[in-house]
Amino acid sequence: MPEYSTLAAVDLGSNSFRLQVARVEGRQLYPLDNLREMVRLAAGLTRDKRLDEDSQARALACLTRFSERLRGFPPHAVRAVATNTLRVAKNAAVFLKKAEAAMGFPIEVISGHEEARLIYLGVAHGLPASPDARLVMDIGGGSTEFIIGRRLKPVKLESLYMGCVSYSLRFFPGGRISREAMNRAELSARSEIQAIAKEFSSEHWQLAYGSSGTARALGDIIQLNQLGSGSGNGEITREGLENFRNHLLKVDDIKKLDLAGIKTDRAPVIAGGFAIMSAAFAELGISRMAQGMGALRQGVLYDLLGRFHKHDMREVTVRQFMRRYHVDGAQAGRVESTALLLGEQLLAAFPCEGEEHLQVLSWAARLHEVGISVAHSGYHKHSAYILGNADMPGFSQREQERLSMLVLAHRGDIGKARGNMIERADFALLFALRLAALFHRSRCETALPRLEVSLRGKEFSLYLERKWLEGNPLTYNALLGEIEQWDALGFRFGMAGADGSKLSASV
Amino acid sequence: MPEYSTLAAVDLGSNSFRLQVARVEGRQLYPLDNLREMVRLAAGLTRDKRLDEDSQARALACLTRFSERLRGFPPHAVRAVATNTLRVAKNAAVFLKKAEAAMGFPIEVISGHEEARLIYLGVAHGLPASPDARLVMDIGGGSTEFIIGRRLKPVKLESLYMGCVSYSLRFFPGGRISREAMNRAELSARSEIQAIAKEFSSEHWQLAYGSSGTARALGDIIQLNQLGSGSGNGEITREGLENFRNHLLKVDDIKKLDLAGIKTDRAPVIAGGFAIMSAAFAELGISRMAQGMGALRQGVLYDLLGRFHKHDMREVTVRQFMRRYHVDGAQAGRVESTALLLGEQLLAAFPCEGEEHLQVLSWAARLHEVGISVAHSGYHKHSAYILGNADMPGFSQREQERLSMLVLAHRGDIGKARGNMIERADFALLFALRLAALFHRSRCETALPRLEVSLRGKEFSLYLERKWLEGNPLTYNALLGEIEQWDALGFRFGMAGADGSKLSASV
Repeated sequence: MPEYSTLAAVDLGSNSFRLQVARVEGRQLYPLDNLREMVRLAAGLTRDKRLDEDSQARALACLTRFSERLRGFPPHAVRAVATNTLRVAKNAAVFLKKAEAAMGFPIEVISGHEEARLIYLGVAHGLPASPDARLVMDIGGGSTEFIIGRRLKPVKLESLYMGCVSYSLRFFPGGRISREAMNRAELSARSEIQAIAKEFSSEHWQLAYGSSGTARALGDIIQLNQLGSGSGNGEITREGLENFRNHLLKVDDIKKLDLAGIKTDRAPVIAGGFAIMSAAFAELGISRMAQGMGALRQGVLYDLLGRFHKHDMREVTVRQFMRRYHVDGAQAGRVESTALLLGEQLLAAFPCEGEEHLQVLSWAARLHEVGISVAHSGYHKHSAYILGNADMPGFSQREQERLSMLVLAHRGDIGKARGNMIERADFALLFALRLAALFHRSRCETALPRLEVSLRGKEFSLYLERKWLEGNPLTYNALLGEIEQWDALGFRFGMAGADGSKLSASV
Repeated sequence: MPEYSTLAAVDLGSNSFRLQVARVEGRQLYPLDNLREMVRLAAGLTRDKRLDEDSQARALACLTRFSERLRGFPPHAVRAVATNTLRVAKNAAVFLKKAEAAMGFPIEVISGHEEARLIYLGVAHGLPASPDARLVMDIGGGSTEFIIGRRLKPVKLESLYMGCVSYSLRFFPGGRISREAMNRAELSARSEIQAIAKEFSSEHWQLAYGSSGTARALGDIIQLNQLGSGSGNGEITREGLENFRNHLLKVDDIKKLDLAGIKTDRAPVIAGGFAIMSAAFAELGISRMAQGMGALRQGVLYDLLGRFHKHDMREVTVRQFMRRYHVDGAQAGRVESTALLLGEQLLAAFPCEGEEHLQVLSWAARLHEVGISVAHSGYHKHSAYILGNADMPGFSQREQERLSMLVLAHRGDIGKARGNMIERADFALLFALRLAALFHRSRCETALPRLEVSLRGKEFSLYLERKWLEGNPLTYNALLGEIEQWDALGFRFGMAGADGSKLSASV
């Protein structure tokens, strides 16, 4: 992968959208530009979990503006991620198509677990070196992430489905505040946090950092209004939170709150954000929380930078999954190398994006048997379930869906791939994977003949020595079965001898 | 569990149904009675995988006859299992209700993996003691099982989806035989076996045994017609198979085959069975196969006997799964003991079957967190997937479905349990499990108050100290949430103080 001197990350958050541009120097990033717009996407989620027209329009207008700043960036120098609201919105797929068109770059929806990992990466890069264990808490618009880590390495990751936008809308609609509503909001947040309290409580870390707009706003309010006896510097303390609650409960409408440091775009979501923060202090035994300077977008940039330096988190995950699920490494390696051999030839048709597709093919080949750990019978379905649902650090949801689909259709009835192909090249990847698995069904080191394949339009061709086929009737028979399978997907599959003579009669 | 002096097993196979009655002496079983009827269930499977009326009628008539022999047996002394055809038939559930009514005992559909385990158990009990590794092959009507084991312990288990009935119908319809059809049948069987050949080939075992009607028939034919130079005793040899094939290919219709040892009820399925056997000899490198005297029904009896002697395979599996999926044993134990405490009180309503339900509740409690190994978020869904799909030695499919359902609905929205409750008592089990999980959400050793529960009609009641609740507002709040949840299932859930005073106002 080539390296770039300037990288950009876009964070399509549930509250705000952000664009961060940074200059690369060695393994460090230096911020160049930082755009932020309060799109408040989560507020546009209807009761039946669909993004309404207004919020979509706000989001698209923002991304169109971002696109201007991104003009001229090469594809691999930009990474855009979307979080909770686009994880849960039922019309996310349709919206994302429009959003990608508006911005001019693909958008990856990432899981809460992956979001937590990237947030830690972003925050940790902005903290002074220290051997201490750190808690990082990030209250987003629709989800809240908790991470314990040391140095640059996250140790525990959790994402809870509660955020400052969703909580403000649910407990303080229209900005109305009451003691009872605050009690309910805090109780609800404490219930969520209770489930992770044992693992994230203060005995497991030395320093706590807040990394979101909510944490920054609360720290500012406490400092500017002298609500707490902390060190200043935007630190959040119990006393500060206590005093802020008293101020909040004195008004019945957030708009009447007369405190320094409450910006107009933060005011509508501060009550929900406060309830979550105060619940975390109570349940996890936090007494003070400092401001962490990084955030998701910095994590995205550092993760991207790592990929150029041969430290791709996805590679680490694939190797870890092979161990965790006791994958037969020899067989996985055989299938992988044959799949790549075929894939390279087929992807000649997609010149500018070939390398990425081959990476996906390699991952699919190495992971296609993880499901055997559940049950041998129908293992491809179990593999697909695991790859579609597991926490896979470094992978976006779309990447997991691609792996899941390839693995599901890698053997047996190919019909299940219909309508589930994510990229145009996926047919080529599936073809390479199916054939590789088929040639290695005996799970032994066998000498394969020279294999040549091509894809022209909707026609796959395979050239190989007639003699080898005649000596391997099971493989020949299985190859003949592929003709029918691909036919069901609207493709033709033809075989010919190395000399070009047609091969398709039954043996 | 009480012990019985006479046990019975019913095997609803794809080819024949069998009833085996045996006398118990210590840990040994002595056959008393053995009924067999050729129901040929697999032949009644339509193209869209439904059991036709004729085959259902044959099966029900057979089970009605079996019921006469089973009259007076206590429920726990009889175990009926169904195999491949009822695994795949889409109308199996409806048929099974009628079948259970006809026979008067419940029927468990077991997975191919479990079938293989039980076959080995049955065969191994009938073989002379030997330290040698053994291959056992069982060609059923709809599936073929391969097992490698030592003494009474299976080491490798595999079930392939091909059987003597299905292969005979597919390749030799109407009993018509041709060289080409035989080639296709053998090639198809070899393709199936190829995938397991590496693990089951002759280097992994010393002795091979056949355990089904097909193996017995082939052994008899070879011996009676002197087709092979084996030891006699019904041994199957390569030479014998070779010669039998030549005889088969001389006729164009199986009915014209003039060889000793072919019984009229075996003739219609011998060609398919032969193709599978011959393919196994070729792919696995078998040179001779002896007759194993036991079979599935003996395995079912020995497994049943083991349950009375505190060697329940299901317990072994539950403990193994807790290790394999890294279950937090302390938490599982807390949830289990509270669930059992509640379950015992609730199951007072189901006096004669209580113990079994509590066993299911204990398993569900110990396994409800297996899905955390996939991902923490939504782990109950992953737990349900694993318990519904994994090979779980000792468990029937219905038992796995019960565990899966309980675990899926043990937290969050209870609506998913609607329509999926398998036993009447499952509502009580679910209630006990949900409350146990709720009381232990903090995952710590906490002193719980005295809990009393009851179920009257569709009303659950929980009595506990008012004071404790007031000191534990998160739990109180969560309990209030349960009122709504159970309401959605048509149940009322009321709480009262230990003194009987109503408790339901919000804290």
